[in-house]
Amino acid sequence: MSAVRTLGLMGTGVIGAGWAARALHFGVNVIAADLKPEMEAVLRATIANAAPALARLVRAPLPERGVLSFTTDPAQMARSADFIQENIPEQLELKQRVLGEVSRHARPGVVIASSTSGLRPSDLQAGMQGPERFCVAHPFNPVYLLPLVELVGGERTTAATIATAAEFFSYIGMHPLQVRREVPGHLTDRLQEALWREILHLINDGVATTGELDESIIYGPGLRWAGMGTNLIYHLAGGEAGMRHMLEQFGPCLKWPWTRLEAPELSEALIDRMVEGTQAQAAGRSIRQLEQQRDDYLVAIQQVLCEQGIGAGLTLRALETRLHAAAAAAAQPLLATANDGQLPRLFEARVRPEWLDYNGHMTESRYLYVFGLASDALFRSVGVDENYRARARMFFSVETHLTHQAEALVNEAFYVTGQLLSVDDKRLRVFYRLHRGSDDRLLATGEQMYLHVDTSIKHSCVIDAAVRTQLERLVAAHAQLPSPRERGRSVGMAVAR
Amino acid sequence: MSAVRTLGLMGTGVIGAGWAARALHFGVNVIAADLKPEMEAVLRATIANAAPALARLVRAPLPERGVLSFTTDPAQMARSADFIQENIPEQLELKQRVLGEVSRHARPGVVIASSTSGLRPSDLQAGMQGPERFCVAHPFNPVYLLPLVELVGGERTTAATIATAAEFFSYIGMHPLQVRREVPGHLTDRLQEALWREILHLINDGVATTGELDESIIYGPGLRWAGMGTNLIYHLAGGEAGMRHMLEQFGPCLKWPWTRLEAPELSEALIDRMVEGTQAQAAGRSIRQLEQQRDDYLVAIQQVLCEQGIGAGLTLRALETRLHAAAAAAAQPLLATANDGQLPRLFEARVRPEWLDYNGHMTESRYLYVFGLASDALFRSVGVDENYRARARMFFSVETHLTHQAEALVNEAFYVTGQLLSVDDKRLRVFYRLHRGSDDRLLATGEQMYLHVDTSIKHSCVIDAAVRTQLERLVAAHAQLPSPRERGRSVGMAVAR
Repeated sequence: MSAVRTLGLMGTGVIGAGWAARALHFGVNVIAADLKPEMEAVLRATIANAAPALARLVRAPLPERGVLSFTTDPAQMARSADFIQENIPEQLELKQRVLGEVSRHARPGVVIASSTSGLRPSDLQAGMQGPERFCVAHPFNPVYLLPLVELVGGERTTAATIATAAEFFSYIGMHPLQVRREVPGHLTDRLQEALWREILHLINDGVATTGELDESIIYGPGLRWAGMGTNLIYHLAGGEAGMRHMLEQFGPCLKWPWTRLEAPELSEALIDRMVEGTQAQAAGRSIRQLEQQRDDYLVAIQQVLCEQGIGAGLTLRALETRLHAAAAAAAQPLLATANDGQLPRLFEARVRPEWLDYNGHMTESRYLYVFGLASDALFRSVGVDENYRARARMFFSVETHLTHQAEALVNEAFYVTGQLLSVDDKRLRVFYRLHRGSDDRLLATGEQMYLHVDTSIKHSCVIDAAVRTQLERLVAAHAQLPSPRERGRSVGMAVAR
Repeated sequence: MSAVRTLGLMGTGVIGAGWAARALHFGVNVIAADLKPEMEAVLRATIANAAPALARLVRAPLPERGVLSFTTDPAQMARSADFIQENIPEQLELKQRVLGEVSRHARPGVVIASSTSGLRPSDLQAGMQGPERFCVAHPFNPVYLLPLVELVGGERTTAATIATAAEFFSYIGMHPLQVRREVPGHLTDRLQEALWREILHLINDGVATTGELDESIIYGPGLRWAGMGTNLIYHLAGGEAGMRHMLEQFGPCLKWPWTRLEAPELSEALIDRMVEGTQAQAAGRSIRQLEQQRDDYLVAIQQVLCEQGIGAGLTLRALETRLHAAAAAAAQPLLATANDGQLPRLFEARVRPEWLDYNGHMTESRYLYVFGLASDALFRSVGVDENYRARARMFFSVETHLTHQAEALVNEAFYVTGQLLSVDDKRLRVFYRLHRGSDDRLLATGEQMYLHVDTSIKHSCVIDAAVRTQLERLVAAHAQLPSPRERGRSVGMAVAR
């Protein structure tokens, strides 16, 4: 339970509504004030729009959802709130006036925070009653999904105020970043603003379009910035000697016109600060270890983007489609393998770090994922591909039996074979085996029944003749090979025997 | 098959080795030249280090791996290559000299590209033989994972050169971004450099540490930049009126000292370019649609980072751990539900977009994933949690049977119940049902056998008495409820009956 039962919001635009959505989700009541009564409907719509993503983000049991109320009276909001967050337009005098009014109605000790993107807290708290309980708490859009909130105190802010604010924001799932000194734009917006102004110059000078400049980030540095900041990234770019080597190598570029922003002098003192800072960030991890962490998240993020068909994921998707097509065109027919007394290897890969569970081996659902990739390869090889699917025909799995026989460890090579057990008008039964690559040890088995479906009417239908013929030949060839020990087994049967 | 059979590399530092790793992976031979013979071992080690991540990135069949050779003779490299990529230190005269030499040995028509971070191609091609086949091809570290490559022609570069380069880089899985005009730093490094110099100022002025400045990105804007660039992000921040409203709202800030970089005048012409550019990027998608895409990838990326324990994922992990603990402390014992004639709801959520397959419904391995989350909740409720695992005790699933009965669609709410079937010294059998939230329709079932394991010796062992007692009570209570129709079924049995 949070010490803050009710969050008061002043202003209900994109940022105010984002705060409301986040707080309500984690069980905090919200009283939102806006001078325009028509904003209530907008606010409720925006919160409803945010809800599905929030519901998916957190996979843990939540406290009972908070209750939202709306008022056009800031004083009423201020009297009812245990914590007040202001989110009105970025105009100093307007904010000063509203914060002053709110402070005269807020109960003593209630923290009042401003979402300002860059105004200084000392300026904002100037006319407040109880200015010591004021701080800047700057969030990022969408507030309901991004964890960052910058906390900045002004000249009269107490440490207790910052601590209370940090505790509340942590409670609603955020990462409070305490900024040591007030500067215009705080930290994040100074960095964003430098990049943004350089963009505006490049557009203004006709060097590139907005789309090209966005591509220049999302296919490269943007992927890195999801997990590591520029400083640690550059520490890695320096190789074994880290940041110091990087600064030696690229220090001269700081004098070159690579941006319109002049760099500071690269003094020994500045170099030492950069090196000591990134050493502290590395926290004992070697360059190789950091590289591996970076590589792991770069792989995983690109695969997420691939599944979602966005940015760098589109490049990966196009690449994989081309490779599948090339392999299908060049593939030895599966039947040839069977005639050699072998089962076809349908899929080969290595165990990825994000497939592990807390026990350090491959989580059970990933076995089924891997069998799914093997079934894709099987279906493609008999002509069940994008074109087949475009005609509203597809095999759906309706029943599955898995056994786990030994552990699969991270980065271990493995392969999956497929043995076709039976096929009829509408159904196909396949037996998969997952083997360790190094010693062929059997790690898991999967038996699956597929139903052939007309996806336009969502009903089973007869398998196309050409596909059926190929499947029948494979079934006949695979029938000559030893039948799987686990075939037709139900859960617990092995135990019962 | 690529038209480029052999890639020639000049320079084998971090960037040269990255190119080698990428090209070899996609079946292109590499001949690498470096004046220092000791670099061969470093190169081979770096390639080996890159291989696991590359092997995991692309989940499709690959052509046969390329062959690597090494020489200290640039001329020999140049004579053997179908495409040459230079990656030596960022010094104009050094690069000019080496590119000149290489160009005199390269076969006619072979494209020669430079990895320069920001030197102008017109300056680099000045002393070359056949300068028309030269261009800048600027990659990003790690070259073997990041798809971006900036292509920039100089005054004498032909369009055919750029086209040939783009085709080759696409073949090895990259996204070639053609830069219209040569400017120092090209596009990406101008943006990165502006941000970097602002960092250096903030460190120099003692405002923040390197670690704080990295946090200011990775918990906020960095997560966004993985999927959308600043321009599209700001278009979204403007609400329904998009970029135009955003510029009206934040235009005045461009005059404020939010960075040391001066902004250009926000003229009508510049506003029009920004608005037209972002409209083109939106490509007909409404603000709401773009928001949903953004929210989807922000959720998915944070969950990937959570699995990997990095950046914003640590915030999410801490939040979920706290929520699990709070729920466990407050939970009604599972037994109470059973005594009411109900099965406990172990897990409730919504179907996430990244769980869909190409048929638009939940992919089969995600059903098992969801049953896994339900089993986590079950185990926690009987005391099998972090502390239990710390004593090297755990339940591992050894056998699973799934049935699919109806489709689960995106964003649909669902819940999972658990019915305990049996428990003995070392084994537990549980039956899960996945129901649609809206109408309680049964979508899938899962029957699982778990074995209790001593993870320190990787062998089965007796379930702790306190846990066993709780499990037995649940089994007894659940035995009063109807037995699952699918219990003990094997694949195809339903068909056989």
